[in-house]
Amino acid sequence: MFITFEGPDGSGKTTQVAQTADALRKRGYRVLLTREPGGTSIGDQIRHILHDMDNQNLHPRAELLLFNASRAQIVEEVIKPHLASGGLVLCDRFFDSTYAYQGYGHGLDLTTLRMVVEFATGGLRPDLTLLLDIAPEDGLQRRLSAIDKGEEWTRLDDMEMAFHRRVREGYHALIAAEPSRWLRIDAAQPVQGVQAAILAALDARLPPPK
Amino acid sequence: MFITFEGPDGSGKTTQVAQTADALRKRGYRVLLTREPGGTSIGDQIRHILHDMDNQNLHPRAELLLFNASRAQIVEEVIKPHLASGGLVLCDRFFDSTYAYQGYGHGLDLTTLRMVVEFATGGLRPDLTLLLDIAPEDGLQRRLSAIDKGEEWTRLDDMEMAFHRRVREGYHALIAAEPSRWLRIDAAQPVQGVQAAILAALDARLPPPK
Repeated sequence: MFITFEGPDGSGKTTQVAQTADALRKRGYRVLLTREPGGTSIGDQIRHILHDMDNQNLHPRAELLLFNASRAQIVEEVIKPHLASGGLVLCDRFFDSTYAYQGYGHGLDLTTLRMVVEFATGGLRPDLTLLLDIAPEDGLQRRLSAIDKGEEWTRLDDMEMAFHRRVREGYHALIAAEPSRWLRIDAAQPVQGVQAAILAALDARLPPPK
Repeated sequence: MFITFEGPDGSGKTTQVAQTADALRKRGYRVLLTREPGGTSIGDQIRHILHDMDNQNLHPRAELLLFNASRAQIVEEVIKPHLASGGLVLCDRFFDSTYAYQGYGHGLDLTTLRMVVEFATGGLRPDLTLLLDIAPEDGLQRRLSAIDKGEEWTRLDDMEMAFHRRVREGYHALIAAEPSRWLRIDAAQPVQGVQAAILAALDARLPPPK
């Protein structure tokens, strides 16, 4: 079974994925925990290009192709073999991030994105995707508290907020289009509550461990 | 005007592109000479991943997406601005290498390749493409002379030869599909003859320098 985790930075996603992997291992599942971009040696080299502050002029189309090159590699080198051996794969972000951020957020054409993603994954799709859902306002809490202390709200804050609202609406559109694949978890509640909600959802859906 | 050079390694392509750039500059053209993969800082980082001997397990789909990420970046950062300013761009390999090597050579689906390439280039196409055409046997001359000295011809040599034959047939199919864009130059003749043939062809097609 292939389970992916989606949601904005600041939703606590990375912590929750790690805790979920630990909990499922304790239940006896053979769990592979990985992330995008990265997750392989080649993927980490690609991740470095994507994150390097000197690469500010990376074009959006080049960025999309790099994300998908990393994706093609992790699918073939890591995810497919682990699934084929009967294991459980948890992935921190997968193709829905492309649709939410590059598509709904940055406005790249969704049909083209689907085509590139289909090519990169060779058609592999998650069996289940969890959205750690949180309002962009809560994700930008730190910035807001700085503003409370007298800093100015800028045009960039407006743009950032509008972008993150589009990403969230994108995730909600993806859920509406394919509700049976998705579970929406309220990520505004305390960490323990989020983890309990995730495990309850997975316990109801996972076959017993082999 | 956007001119690309294609052909196998060993066809003398890189030397010919450099000599052609020099000759056109002497005629008064503002020439930008570049290459794929690479040609930008980000492209060179991608080229490094593609050429690194430690990355032997790079999956063909990931490889294709990396080539096209480098392509998207060079098109937007270098080629389009130079063309927009009225300059002449010479590029050592462009999308026809993808079709010839990944498509005809490695057997990836051509329709899918075209789709990824269209996305990467944003629809930019060369005005003219020169194929430095040479039989694979001549390209593998060094290997053959080693065999003359007693080394064994192996299964790998057979595979290599079959691959390079498919690549050459691929180039010929690309020419047949779009003859007005292509010029086939006989690269088996001496270096000076190849250069003279290239310049004669370009002189007949280029508008006068600005």
